[in-house]
Amino acid sequence: MSTIRRAQLSEFDLIRRFFTRPVRKAVLGVGDDCALIDPRPGHHLAISTDMLVSGRHFFADVPPRALGHKALAVNLSDLAAMGAEPRAFTLALALPEADPAWLEELAAGMLALADAHGCELIGGDTTRGPLTLSLTVFGDVPPRAALRRDAARPGDDIWVSGTLGDARLALGDCRGEWLLPEPEFSRVRPRMETPSPRIALGLALRGVAHAALDISDGLIGDLGHILARSQVGALLDVDALPRSEVLASQPDALQRECVLAGGDDYELCFTAPIGHREAIAAIADRLELPLTRVGAITPEPGLRLVDGHGSPVTYAGASFDHFASP
Amino acid sequence: MSTIRRAQLSEFDLIRRFFTRPVRKAVLGVGDDCALIDPRPGHHLAISTDMLVSGRHFFADVPPRALGHKALAVNLSDLAAMGAEPRAFTLALALPEADPAWLEELAAGMLALADAHGCELIGGDTTRGPLTLSLTVFGDVPPRAALRRDAARPGDDIWVSGTLGDARLALGDCRGEWLLPEPEFSRVRPRMETPSPRIALGLALRGVAHAALDISDGLIGDLGHILARSQVGALLDVDALPRSEVLASQPDALQRECVLAGGDDYELCFTAPIGHREAIAAIADRLELPLTRVGAITPEPGLRLVDGHGSPVTYAGASFDHFASP
Repeated sequence: MSTIRRAQLSEFDLIRRFFTRPVRKAVLGVGDDCALIDPRPGHHLAISTDMLVSGRHFFADVPPRALGHKALAVNLSDLAAMGAEPRAFTLALALPEADPAWLEELAAGMLALADAHGCELIGGDTTRGPLTLSLTVFGDVPPRAALRRDAARPGDDIWVSGTLGDARLALGDCRGEWLLPEPEFSRVRPRMETPSPRIALGLALRGVAHAALDISDGLIGDLGHILARSQVGALLDVDALPRSEVLASQPDALQRECVLAGGDDYELCFTAPIGHREAIAAIADRLELPLTRVGAITPEPGLRLVDGHGSPVTYAGASFDHFASP
Repeated sequence: MSTIRRAQLSEFDLIRRFFTRPVRKAVLGVGDDCALIDPRPGHHLAISTDMLVSGRHFFADVPPRALGHKALAVNLSDLAAMGAEPRAFTLALALPEADPAWLEELAAGMLALADAHGCELIGGDTTRGPLTLSLTVFGDVPPRAALRRDAARPGDDIWVSGTLGDARLALGDCRGEWLLPEPEFSRVRPRMETPSPRIALGLALRGVAHAALDISDGLIGDLGHILARSQVGALLDVDALPRSEVLASQPDALQRECVLAGGDDYELCFTAPIGHREAIAAIADRLELPLTRVGAITPEPGLRLVDGHGSPVTYAGASFDHFASP
């Protein structure tokens, strides 16, 4: 819908060249006014949208293949957190200039991840503008299987997948907040640039977990969303939070900052009844993905942090009160 | 998913304050990892996405209420062009700063149009960044009723709704390409700033029209999409193209530029068999919306422009060849 005709011309070229592929599952893909999909009978359609802006969500000089991966990954992560099975996505893209080599890499990173999850590109929009990617993803989830934020219950265990904080550790190095030795930076950088959406875990947690979300803004803030919407509180064991070898070798204060407030890991945080501990252990084995019990849901509101000995932990960065307000 | 915590805090405030309303039709709206909708049995789900960038698709100082209206209108227009009934939309919004008064107006303009079409806001994302709006809209359309671009057939009449070129006429004034007297500018400005998506027309054309699209980039280019995808050609009577009184009082060359290449009117262009002329006239009467026959689909490829006497018209701005290439 640009009013600049010359930009329009290259727009259609770009879409055709890099982002148009035959659809396998959709009724109609890229190239008409709308895409058409046939919803899966007996399922809700789960929908999520995320916008990534250059200089804010990624560095302008990020490798385009990594950017393509990450832009889709953070959206797929929302489907994972809902227990939804990916089906399709749309891409709106603003570009300051049309660099074919850059675009080819962007498309390659995005479409490789899309193929890995059976999630096809069905439509989009391309325009000139400050580099911005806005994706909307679609997935299927059976009624009552959706992992909603408002479903945590007192007595539930709180779990997190994988390890937390590596993306924040890498980001701090890039920003000059701290400096990691090169070998260590190389080990955490992929957690920041090419996160893995926990799709298989989300599907496995259907009927097992109560509430779930993906940790994109930091555990404290994100867990706060579950507590606020479920009208419950939580006790969180800070020492139990799983961290990588690289992060575990950092100073204590830095570790806590990264595991508690570091975003962008895109692990799942979920709650489940105590009776499901064995089932969850079996899921961890099957997926070869660590799942760690880090606390419990409490009936009284508020989030209390404790260490491994049960002593209270004060964390200045915890801005939980804000999110808990109704 | 911003990595800047302070921006995150205001993000949730903003969403809650201006863009969160109870959903009536969706299973789950704003506030979880995904929205959930229940697809309409026996219908395709039509999906379209459009991104609007400040300084490209709108002037930075556009009234925010008009911007909110237009951002949704151009997306609804894609549903109209498919014959789909609006159901829901998501909004991704990048803002350079959080100005509550500006946001309130933006939301008011957007949600008023949404309410008028029963299209509810079910999810979104807000971040800091250069002012950009990216919407994805959802609608329902029965199988075989979708108005696809590839469905034009030789012998079809070509129709357009309303009048063409006023949005381009207003834009040229704003850009300083030409200067309109104030009363005339005031009459065409709403066509540029607050276009009306032709939803009712799209629904009425189910089973009546063959192919359809909305004219967002200019009739020549947009009709070219129908011709390319349907593998047909067209004969277009330039003098028959409907124009407003204001445009009809402009110099001939300017009129042609505006009706042939002017985008942003968001009228529909559609093709229909000759036998449906009476049905289309009845639709025009019922909707109180002019529908004008402006040409015919031909079996031989290419777009030929003629005047009211059937003489060929040369139009330098016609870049149709580009779009027609396979």
